[in-house]
Amino acid sequence: MQAIVKQQRAPGLEVTSVRKPAAGPGEVLIAVRHAGVCGTDLHIADWDAWAQGRLKPPLVVGHEFAGEIVALGDGVAELKVGQPVTAEGHIVCGHCVQCRTGNGAFAEYIAMPATNVLPLNGIPTTVGAVMDPMGNAFHAVLTADVSGSTVFIVGCGPIGCFAVGVARAAGAARVIASDVNPKRLELARTMGAHVLINAARDDVVRTVLEETGGEGADVVCEMSGIPSALHQAFAAVRMGGRVQLLGIPKGAVPVDFATEIIFKGITVYGVIGRKMYDTWHQMRRYLTAGLLDPRPVITHQFPLAQVDEALAAIRAGDAGKIILEIA
Amino acid sequence: MQAIVKQQRAPGLEVTSVRKPAAGPGEVLIAVRHAGVCGTDLHIADWDAWAQGRLKPPLVVGHEFAGEIVALGDGVAELKVGQPVTAEGHIVCGHCVQCRTGNGAFAEYIAMPATNVLPLNGIPTTVGAVMDPMGNAFHAVLTADVSGSTVFIVGCGPIGCFAVGVARAAGAARVIASDVNPKRLELARTMGAHVLINAARDDVVRTVLEETGGEGADVVCEMSGIPSALHQAFAAVRMGGRVQLLGIPKGAVPVDFATEIIFKGITVYGVIGRKMYDTWHQMRRYLTAGLLDPRPVITHQFPLAQVDEALAAIRAGDAGKIILEIA
Amino acid sequence: MQAIVKQQRAPGLEVTSVRKPAAGPGEVLIAVRHAGVCGTDLHIADWDAWAQGRLKPPLVVGHEFAGEIVALGDGVAELKVGQPVTAEGHIVCGHCVQCRTGNGAFAEYIAMPATNVLPLNGIPTTVGAVMDPMGNAFHAVLTADVSGSTVFIVGCGPIGCFAVGVARAAGAARVIASDVNPKRLELARTMGAHVLINAARDDVVRTVLEETGGEGADVVCEMSGIPSALHQAFAAVRMGGRVQLLGIPKGAVPVDFATEIIFKGITVYGVIGRKMYDTWHQMRRYLTAGLLDPRPVITHQFPLAQVDEALAAIRAGDAGKIILEIA
Amino acid sequence: MQAIVKQQRAPGLEVTSVRKPAAGPGEVLIAVRHAGVCGTDLHIADWDAWAQGRLKPPLVVGHEFAGEIVALGDGVAELKVGQPVTAEGHIVCGHCVQCRTGNGAFAEYIAMPATNVLPLNGIPTTVGAVMDPMGNAFHAVLTADVSGSTVFIVGCGPIGCFAVGVARAAGAARVIASDVNPKRLELARTMGAHVLINAARDDVVRTVLEETGGEGADVVCEMSGIPSALHQAFAAVRMGGRVQLLGIPKGAVPVDFATEIIFKGITVYGVIGRKMYDTWHQMRRYLTAGLLDPRPVITHQFPLAQVDEALAAIRAGDAGKIILEIA
Repeated sequence: MQAIVKQQRAPGLEVTSVRKPAAGPGEVLIAVRHAGVCGTDLHIADWDAWAQGRLKPPLVVGHEFAGEIVALGDGVAELKVGQPVTAEGHIVCGHCVQCRTGNGAFAEYIAMPATNVLPLNGIPTTVGAVMDPMGNAFHAVLTADVSGSTVFIVGCGPIGCFAVGVARAAGAARVIASDVNPKRLELARTMGAHVLINAARDDVVRTVLEETGGEGADVVCEMSGIPSALHQAFAAVRMGGRVQLLGIPKGAVPVDFATEIIFKGITVYGVIGRKMYDTWHQMRRYLTAGLLDPRPVITHQFPLAQVDEALAAIRAGDAGKIILEIA
Repeated sequence: MQAIVKQQRAPGLEVTSVRKPAAGPGEVLIAVRHAGVCGTDLHIADWDAWAQGRLKPPLVVGHEFAGEIVALGDGVAELKVGQPVTAEGHIVCGHCVQCRTGNGAFAEYIAMPATNVLPLNGIPTTVGAVMDPMGNAFHAVLTADVSGSTVFIVGCGPIGCFAVGVARAAGAARVIASDVNPKRLELARTMGAHVLINAARDDVVRTVLEETGGEGADVVCEMSGIPSALHQAFAAVRMGGRVQLLGIPKGAVPVDFATEIIFKGITVYGVIGRKMYDTWHQMRRYLTAGLLDPRPVITHQFPLAQVDEALAAIRAGDAGKIILEIA
Repeated sequence: MQAIVKQQRAPGLEVTSVRKPAAGPGEVLIAVRHAGVCGTDLHIADWDAWAQGRLKPPLVVGHEFAGEIVALGDGVAELKVGQPVTAEGHIVCGHCVQCRTGNGAFAEYIAMPATNVLPLNGIPTTVGAVMDPMGNAFHAVLTADVSGSTVFIVGCGPIGCFAVGVARAAGAARVIASDVNPKRLELARTMGAHVLINAARDDVVRTVLEETGGEGADVVCEMSGIPSALHQAFAAVRMGGRVQLLGIPKGAVPVDFATEIIFKGITVYGVIGRKMYDTWHQMRRYLTAGLLDPRPVITHQFPLAQVDEALAAIRAGDAGKIILEIA
Repeated sequence: MQAIVKQQRAPGLEVTSVRKPAAGPGEVLIAVRHAGVCGTDLHIADWDAWAQGRLKPPLVVGHEFAGEIVALGDGVAELKVGQPVTAEGHIVCGHCVQCRTGNGAFAEYIAMPATNVLPLNGIPTTVGAVMDPMGNAFHAVLTADVSGSTVFIVGCGPIGCFAVGVARAAGAARVIASDVNPKRLELARTMGAHVLINAARDDVVRTVLEETGGEGADVVCEMSGIPSALHQAFAAVRMGGRVQLLGIPKGAVPVDFATEIIFKGITVYGVIGRKMYDTWHQMRRYLTAGLLDPRPVITHQFPLAQVDEALAAIRAGDAGKIILEIA
């Protein structure tokens, strides 16, 4: 079958033919329909320090996907052939099924343990392909109490834009979003943000305070990992509010605990991945109930063979979510 | 000034002229613009056992209202003349300001302690006049976690219809509403209910189970106080779900605790009034953010002098909320 | 091996020799050391309506136990031979491993799925044998917030007495316990109850109100299932408090929802079994940390052959927990 | 009356005679019995930058105290002469009654608004005098869920030692405490700590991991404000655990958000002061129920005139809490 493969311990990805996997005991074989391209895939393509420390080529790349079950391994009773599904395949630090086995989603077929598989129940596979990263947005937003609240989303990459939509769906009274990129801000507007702040041009903290009668936001989701944005998150949250940290800063960031955290009496929560399987079920309920439509965040679709174009679009910096069309 | 007065310990209300109140120390004088008519007012008009046990005529009737501040008593600093406001005036069991003082809202003017007064911040006085009963709906819905959940509202009187709107605003995935009255069900649909059940004709519990894949609703709000509806609430909630009880059954209702509550592992919560002042502030945020518009529930408006027509419309059984226009 | 067997669809239990079970794939074989005798076992002995509707003799009786692993089935990696363990074997309504398979704990050996097994980590097997019913007490107490609170335990059977100890261990400021039986009240005192109420003689509700400055208890755990005690629970809880219902009333109990639940603004929670596996881990932490010692509640121990004496002691009504010694 | 006064904008405190205050409208006059000496008082004595920026001498020093009501101002109905009381007088950042008015507790008499006053209900005034700082310990511990948990207290100054006692009283399974000072560690042991770590000598994080089977503590309370201890707090908490920050680091501390907070999925909470009046009532319940006895933490008592000795004892670094005896 066709697949995108990391062949060697060097930069680059290759579209090539590999052996089709089979469904072992307790597994299912899935014909991949759509697969999401993640920042992690860029690290793998570029073969940076993170990738060098974790991966053992050769392996098929890709971990966000949706498709259709085409075969059941022994002992799989609760799923059936023909069922559209997505799957949790990814755990932080490289301990994902794909990395351990070399069996990735940028391919015509992937085999997965049945217990990791989630039927789509009518959700289209384009959306199913982005449920892995969107799960992080659900986790970040729904572990705060946002109904009737002002929510400030710092950073409008794909997960930030999903978070805007989740906050609206969960009853946030007002959603404020910031980014340095006008195209990403437009995506946030499309997903329902009431107020947009261009962080390259506007005073972020002052704008949030103005929009909240001087009090600050009830909940801030920091999705960028940029040190200056982290400080903006602490400055823009109200006394007693909550800051959800999802963006990963590189290296140490100096924090004045007294004024940024303690005297404000705030709660800071580290958002790591998704809760298995709570977040997946919650997300499926929101999507099947039509509470939000994440498709505007998917700005590009490419065929499998054009993975280089997909990576280039991510590098250009103003894409939303990019997916590969496989079958 | 003109006011609706309970003159004697006998049925009836009278539109008559009474002395205009003044703002004592710590109080404000409010020119009433709109006042909501409540089931309690019907009890007072009819002079039933409940009213006989609690009230000492003569008194001006009415406790749900909004208007404009026209005078400040001594020591009131945080409010100002001209400000549109509503107020919490009502506590369960007749311990309300109005009953204790004879100083009611069905009148051109009312004096209230400044600490009970809530500025409307742009909310129209028609809506301000119904914030007291709508507060019960906010309390009933927001003390459950409804975002992403299926919510079943049992009984579509005014508070039930408000609850439909609050549940939608707070991110409920699916709202089911039941009543025996088709007009009230239409109001529930207007407020955002996805599924309507005519309890006079349909099998209520079976319909809820069908709509929830056999599981039952995550949250049930019982707003009717009718014993059969109470049993439907327990039967329609899912294992481990939550039942909010707001409707007041008359007398004792036999309950099979084993099958209706304990073996289902559910939580039952008695919703009494509003939380002062949390609920009021929460409600004002939802309304000023435009998260819901309760005005479709207000089906009738009458001038003060037509209070009898207002009471007749309530008795007819298919009105939503009724308000009096005063100035 | 020796075991206590329900041979026929008729009253009675028989101590007899049966075939020793084997550990199938994913199972472990456990040499039972101690087994708790439960009210359910009395129903089975008496062959009452409940037992007739659920059980298919012949079967080995008993579901509360602790012992030592003597053999591992295929695929069991996380446990080892010689390890002292207990196990969750019991789900409400007869859907327990023992009833489905006829493979019970009143026997020299029992086979259990490895996933149901909990290593004792130093807890003695006498205590391990009562962790199943004690889990209900943990679930009832720890799903309320009892630290610094007044807790009222209604009914001092074994689970009620365990609940007294759990409430003390979890930081309750004051524990009040009621029962009609002076011996059971003494057990409650031994487990740490500050105030004892003889419900056959004293005014239960008045005493609780006196002990709480007229306010009522913060948390009430109803462990008896007796209708009068249920009403005492609602009357003795404070405004806004919490009532945990574990005792199972027979048939319907008339409840005045207005005065007993709604106007008091209380929360009522149906306690069904234990949370798997949260409650088991929580309980093991309390026991290994020495936060409570449940052994005073174990008032009788009999050898396996004296099961009739054990049942007679339960019937006499003033036993605490009774266990069988097997090896 | 005699009082300890900050006379001038320069180092030093003076024991001198000042005019006795009177109870204004809504206030009570309290004869001070015992007063706690706080680190803040040291800043005031030393006239450091913090003190220079906030205080306007002359003023009577002291904000932690207990005593007896000797006079009621106009309009005070709920309190009475002769009643032993303590009071919340202190808000972070110098916005305390004492600083604003110059009316402090290191004096024979103090006047306080009645709404700030808390009757002691039998708690001795030595304990009442330390309820202000002990309230911070209650707030830090009880905003986490410690029952059945392992709690690690970082820093055994007076508030850390109080926190050890509160954690035990609230049902913590295991309390670990660290400090560099052996005398303070002994105080922590007296208050109930199971494990003591001498941070000057032992490997703090490794010890906590060893004591918790490699998992880390469920809850960590950082009471020292020392940067190295802050990193120990993040390293010693388990995945998904909770860190309560009460100690105030000076200046910025570099934090690796990725490894210290986000990838661990922890919650960090800034503990600022006490919750008025929830914490006070909670604390009074624990104390009147005898759930903890904070008196071992009070290591020194001095008469008012020996305030310099009191300050010297704090400076020496191994005192617990120090109080002044006034009458």
